[in-house]
Amino acid sequence: MKVVKFGGSSVANAVQLEKVLDIVKSDEKRKIVIVSAPGKVTEADIKVTDLLIEYYDLYESEQDTTEIIEKIIQRYASMVEELQIEKSVLEDIATSIKGLATLERGDNPYLRDTFLSAGEDNSAKLIAVFFQSRGVKSRYISPKEAGLIVTSEPSNARVLESSYANLAKLKNFEEVLVIPGFFGVTETGNVCTFSRGGSDVTGSILAAGVEAELYENFTDVDGIFAAHPGVVHEPMSIQELTYKEMRELAYAGFTVIHDEALFPVYQAKIPVVIKNTNNPTHAGTKILASRTEKELAVVGIAGDDGFASLNISKYLMNRELGFGRKVLEILEKFDISFEHMPSGIDDISVIMRERYLTEEKEQLILEEIKKVLAPDEIYFEHNLSILMIVGEGMREKIGVTAKGTTALSKRGINLELINQGSSEVSVMFGIKSDKEKAAIRALYETYFN
Amino acid sequence: MKVVKFGGSSVANAVQLEKVLDIVKSDEKRKIVIVSAPGKVTEADIKVTDLLIEYYDLYESEQDTTEIIEKIIQRYASMVEELQIEKSVLEDIATSIKGLATLERGDNPYLRDTFLSAGEDNSAKLIAVFFQSRGVKSRYISPKEAGLIVTSEPSNARVLESSYANLAKLKNFEEVLVIPGFFGVTETGNVCTFSRGGSDVTGSILAAGVEAELYENFTDVDGIFAAHPGVVHEPMSIQELTYKEMRELAYAGFTVIHDEALFPVYQAKIPVVIKNTNNPTHAGTKILASRTEKELAVVGIAGDDGFASLNISKYLMNRELGFGRKVLEILEKFDISFEHMPSGIDDISVIMRERYLTEEKEQLILEEIKKVLAPDEIYFEHNLSILMIVGEGMREKIGVTAKGTTALSKRGINLELINQGSSEVSVMFGIKSDKEKAAIRALYETYFN
Repeated sequence: MKVVKFGGSSVANAVQLEKVLDIVKSDEKRKIVIVSAPGKVTEADIKVTDLLIEYYDLYESEQDTTEIIEKIIQRYASMVEELQIEKSVLEDIATSIKGLATLERGDNPYLRDTFLSAGEDNSAKLIAVFFQSRGVKSRYISPKEAGLIVTSEPSNARVLESSYANLAKLKNFEEVLVIPGFFGVTETGNVCTFSRGGSDVTGSILAAGVEAELYENFTDVDGIFAAHPGVVHEPMSIQELTYKEMRELAYAGFTVIHDEALFPVYQAKIPVVIKNTNNPTHAGTKILASRTEKELAVVGIAGDDGFASLNISKYLMNRELGFGRKVLEILEKFDISFEHMPSGIDDISVIMRERYLTEEKEQLILEEIKKVLAPDEIYFEHNLSILMIVGEGMREKIGVTAKGTTALSKRGINLELINQGSSEVSVMFGIKSDKEKAAIRALYETYFN
Repeated sequence: MKVVKFGGSSVANAVQLEKVLDIVKSDEKRKIVIVSAPGKVTEADIKVTDLLIEYYDLYESEQDTTEIIEKIIQRYASMVEELQIEKSVLEDIATSIKGLATLERGDNPYLRDTFLSAGEDNSAKLIAVFFQSRGVKSRYISPKEAGLIVTSEPSNARVLESSYANLAKLKNFEEVLVIPGFFGVTETGNVCTFSRGGSDVTGSILAAGVEAELYENFTDVDGIFAAHPGVVHEPMSIQELTYKEMRELAYAGFTVIHDEALFPVYQAKIPVVIKNTNNPTHAGTKILASRTEKELAVVGIAGDDGFASLNISKYLMNRELGFGRKVLEILEKFDISFEHMPSGIDDISVIMRERYLTEEKEQLILEEIKKVLAPDEIYFEHNLSILMIVGEGMREKIGVTAKGTTALSKRGINLELINQGSSEVSVMFGIKSDKEKAAIRALYETYFN
């Protein structure tokens, strides 16, 4: 059994839905289909989810919602019409959309999530009917019916372990099940959405729940590229990478699939494939526990800006038991999660995301560390980018780091930080952000050309 | 005013003492002379300190000490005779050595320190008389008389801040002051020795106390070499290096001067020079706050074995606020000071000295981390060596790391870890210990040939 997830652009209009149908029909193992809300294909399109946000805002502030309701229903209506399927499903959808404007406003923490979930929910209803009309036995299943139970954290739900026993029962259905992504229900029956990764998360949870042999994640790109196509001209696409490699790449800006979404399949050791709805014969990118192609030292190069480092030096620092721990403790007090902590003998740098910092916080941190640890020198450094050279194959190959450092030095790019732990899944370089693109291009050329 | 310290081999016999005299006479600024206990020049020599340890052991276990006392006095007697100086000083020395065997045994935590201090103490008495006999106005000053007050920690004394006001008064003497190294007195008047660095520490404290323009540390080598002469054939000697560079090199095995000994002069910003008593015209190695020669990117390469790493991986580790801090906290509970902490996204390696570990401790650490942090994988890795490429000039120079990583990869040496903080005083490579010497040779060749 395979779990198949289709992203927003794959279900954006009738033409796309025909492609989805072909994909589902072409492999009878594709028994569970997770769908997003209708997204964008052309620039002119507006994502249904964005329309729903507008709808919610209007309703919440007690303004007129007639027009926006019409707009949303119209998105579904044009699909129903073009696909020439039963009109009754559109009535269902219209009732559901209009019904949102009857929900209790006031003190309802789940209201926004319920509005937003309607995009995926109605998408699933429509697609189930569409499949049925084309001779594919199919059935819409809501997260509630499926038993996808989540924590009571609006916009930030996490799946509860107890869901998995419920989801396992979905294996018994004969029909193709069409399930909306992006949300679950709390134990008390409220709709609650996932924070990040949206429908990818649902797909991953379902794949783990039914112990799928494969989780197919259909997007609008031919898999994952070895470097960002906006930086490197026509980068090659990655055939295979491990969960860990995907994590390292996602960390530094690879956003094709959100890394947190992978957690359920990572735990259940279910392989994932990222494929293109618009080019389904392309093999795409497989994400799995270990690669069959072990020769490749480096699979991808990612880069992300928005990092800062806190640099501290103190003579004889390394004789002070607990120095590093105390620094981290102070940062933690300010809710700062550290990313890396490269160190010399008498100095330590703590790398963090800029977004955790404010000028005021920085001052308070500097003051507290000065008070507690009396460093000789301490300062923040901004505008850093982190480059990740990722590949589990590095472990077996000698000279991977040498190649990278040489490539950067030839371009006159100074390394502010280097960090490579003994897992050897990646090497991290810290550089000034203004050199980021040049650095990624240099590294790509070195490892892939 | 210059503070001059002579090590054990410089004061080991009459021939050496004549060299010391010449050095002191040749520069009238050399007003404060710190001396070690007579050490070794030939293989046959036994260090006076080693004789004193034997003496202490015999006395402590209530055995006969006649012979060992004779041996110790004989070391001084042969110098007195060869130098043809007043016999009365030898009587003083003999009384002092014999007097040790009248001290209270039983519950006396300072007994061993008092025995050991006699080597330096009598060396200073003899040298003061020797200088005087050659027309150099000189005077023996004990640490007690000088006011060198230390903490009450036998074998592990640290100077008290209050000493510095006392020591400043030594500037007022007209004579050359000869002061024994290696020990101070507690506030209650007990003799207490320094733990590490011995006489180097005393010299450094005195230099800071009298605000010397230079602290000259005379040993038996032409300064500090850029790599260990036992590994690299005839390495060049370093002309200048900064306190920080010295610290980094000392950390990874450079033991010419103990890095903790440098702390007082580092704080007081007093330059240090390491010179050779046997070749005093050689410029030696200067240690100072910042180098005049700024072009040199790398000043030295050090390597040290005896490191282990604790490797931990956990999917989504970097989303767990406090993960790294908690690991360090657990290690701290076991009195383990971490050296470095390179990390990937979902993994962290903590580098520590093997000597802090036992098999049992490792087990307990693994259990506790498993319990508290539930990692996916955790294990210790042993037999690691740390290589340090040291040089403050790195900051300005691009490509230093590239050179080093390339040199190692050409020799087929795999990098287990890399670590470079933003201070850029050093780059650290972690490699398997069996490759250490080959690696140091490769790096030396790259940076110095």
